[in-house]
Amino acid sequence: MAFRIRPVDATFYDLFSESAQHLVIGAGLLAEMLAEGADREDVAQRMRDAEHAADETTHSIVRRVNSTFITPFDREDIYALASGLDDIMDMMDEAVDLVLLYEVKELPPELSVQVEVLQQCAELTADAMPRLRSMKDLSEFWIEINRLENTGDKTFRRLLAKLFSGDFKALEVLKLKDIVESLEGAIDAFEKVANTIEQIAVKES
Amino acid sequence: MAFRIRPVDATFYDLFSESAQHLVIGAGLLAEMLAEGADREDVAQRMRDAEHAADETTHSIVRRVNSTFITPFDREDIYALASGLDDIMDMMDEAVDLVLLYEVKELPPELSVQVEVLQQCAELTADAMPRLRSMKDLSEFWIEINRLENTGDKTFRRLLAKLFSGDFKALEVLKLKDIVESLEGAIDAFEKVANTIEQIAVKES
Amino acid sequence: MAFRIRPVDATFYDLFSESAQHLVIGAGLLAEMLAEGADREDVAQRMRDAEHAADETTHSIVRRVNSTFITPFDREDIYALASGLDDIMDMMDEAVDLVLLYEVKELPPELSVQVEVLQQCAELTADAMPRLRSMKDLSEFWIEINRLENTGDKTFRRLLAKLFSGDFKALEVLKLKDIVESLEGAIDAFEKVANTIEQIAVKES
Repeated sequence: MAFRIRPVDATFYDLFSESAQHLVIGAGLLAEMLAEGADREDVAQRMRDAEHAADETTHSIVRRVNSTFITPFDREDIYALASGLDDIMDMMDEAVDLVLLYEVKELPPELSVQVEVLQQCAELTADAMPRLRSMKDLSEFWIEINRLENTGDKTFRRLLAKLFSGDFKALEVLKLKDIVESLEGAIDAFEKVANTIEQIAVKES
Repeated sequence: MAFRIRPVDATFYDLFSESAQHLVIGAGLLAEMLAEGADREDVAQRMRDAEHAADETTHSIVRRVNSTFITPFDREDIYALASGLDDIMDMMDEAVDLVLLYEVKELPPELSVQVEVLQQCAELTADAMPRLRSMKDLSEFWIEINRLENTGDKTFRRLLAKLFSGDFKALEVLKLKDIVESLEGAIDAFEKVANTIEQIAVKES
Repeated sequence: MAFRIRPVDATFYDLFSESAQHLVIGAGLLAEMLAEGADREDVAQRMRDAEHAADETTHSIVRRVNSTFITPFDREDIYALASGLDDIMDMMDEAVDLVLLYEVKELPPELSVQVEVLQQCAELTADAMPRLRSMKDLSEFWIEINRLENTGDKTFRRLLAKLFSGDFKALEVLKLKDIVESLEGAIDAFEKVANTIEQIAVKES
């Protein structure tokens, strides 16, 4: 379409940016949680606060989409994006929570590799959100997230193989597997958000 | 909107009430299943019957939404509510099934605490369904479900910590963890239904 | 409706048939993977290729639905069907991957029973896709898939009971349970596709 004037509620973009900022904070707390000598109780409490703040932002988006007549893109896509971002935070919160709850003593170093992937995904997502306004230069975002997800998947598989190598006792495997899977779930959730954004961009272009 | 006349198919409300009544029965059977000296084969059979009856109700709702021109609220919300209620029943059925299948000898008492939460959630949901007609006094419903879900989550985490405390063998942990997670899944599924109803109420108000 | 002329993009049907053909290939590779003396690395590589090819088809459907004005049935149903078919492939790919990754030595024979169910489901689905055009003779498809899913569910439960019978060590249970559950997930995913098709057929009839 060569020419389009559509009055939109600009604050949707702000809210999506806010939502992604929570993910940057969450991924940072996850890194803190895995660091040696971390005060796990304290980090987990801050993660819970961050997760509540993220929930607030999600609710604001949902309330706004329900009460606004004209939205910058399809209502269902706004829901999908908002809940996709929220799912990521939930997964990262779960990972932090499990580390605290299971009192895991020794964490395989590959876990930190996964958390670094999550931190990069969060940064990229936060950077991309303001570009939703123009719908420009978004393809590099989803391509890079997909690349990171591929890397994450390889590490995930290496981690699983390591857990079952015989070096860990069954109970430790059970604990670590839950943590490893929640990190993998968070990375997958970033990919889902990237796919949602790709779909929105294709529709709107 | 001060004034609205909209011819609706009243039986949607009846079907949602019926659907929630199945949940009251299901939660009761779950409590029976955990009771000492229960005839597990017999309870599990009655649970299967209850689950089939619930399926029937869900199908009736879906058939009706597909064949009715005017629905009391958005088609997609009717689907979401119907399948949300159905998911709860599936989760409770799964929990009963696992108790039978895994032949677990000793069940931690906290499991009964979770089942009491489920029974309360089911009662509240059955009470709330008729109020969909007027869309009045529903906020107390979703607030209370959210409160119960918070309680359930604390018990869930206590249960997980207990399972990994070293008092249980790995195989018992594996079995109990599945059961504990299916109860947690059922409680979460109630919260999802409460959120769906909140969303419907906000849209329709 | 006695008379209907609706110009449609015929290639949607072709793409759905293509998508289901990938499932036939995937289920065949799954059977190869479980066969004694299989070159697991090689089969897993071919499964990855098949999964990528399936992804391509899914993307083609999504791109087409986003760029086509008139679709043969509701846009949301096309999405649901495309992603439902894609989910099946993902589950089968996961099962193959876990067999490789976990280096499981002894696979219980009931696993092959589940894979036979998957092969039958895939054949039936591939046969049914061309009938989407006329929307005729589809009910036998979803009835048969539901019957197969019931059989699969019984085998699944027998498998779980066997895993926990005491004959397997905790670590083996953990590994086999993941594989068993991914097969069960694939069968369930076929049922979901059958339900989606039932819903589409009811709407369009």
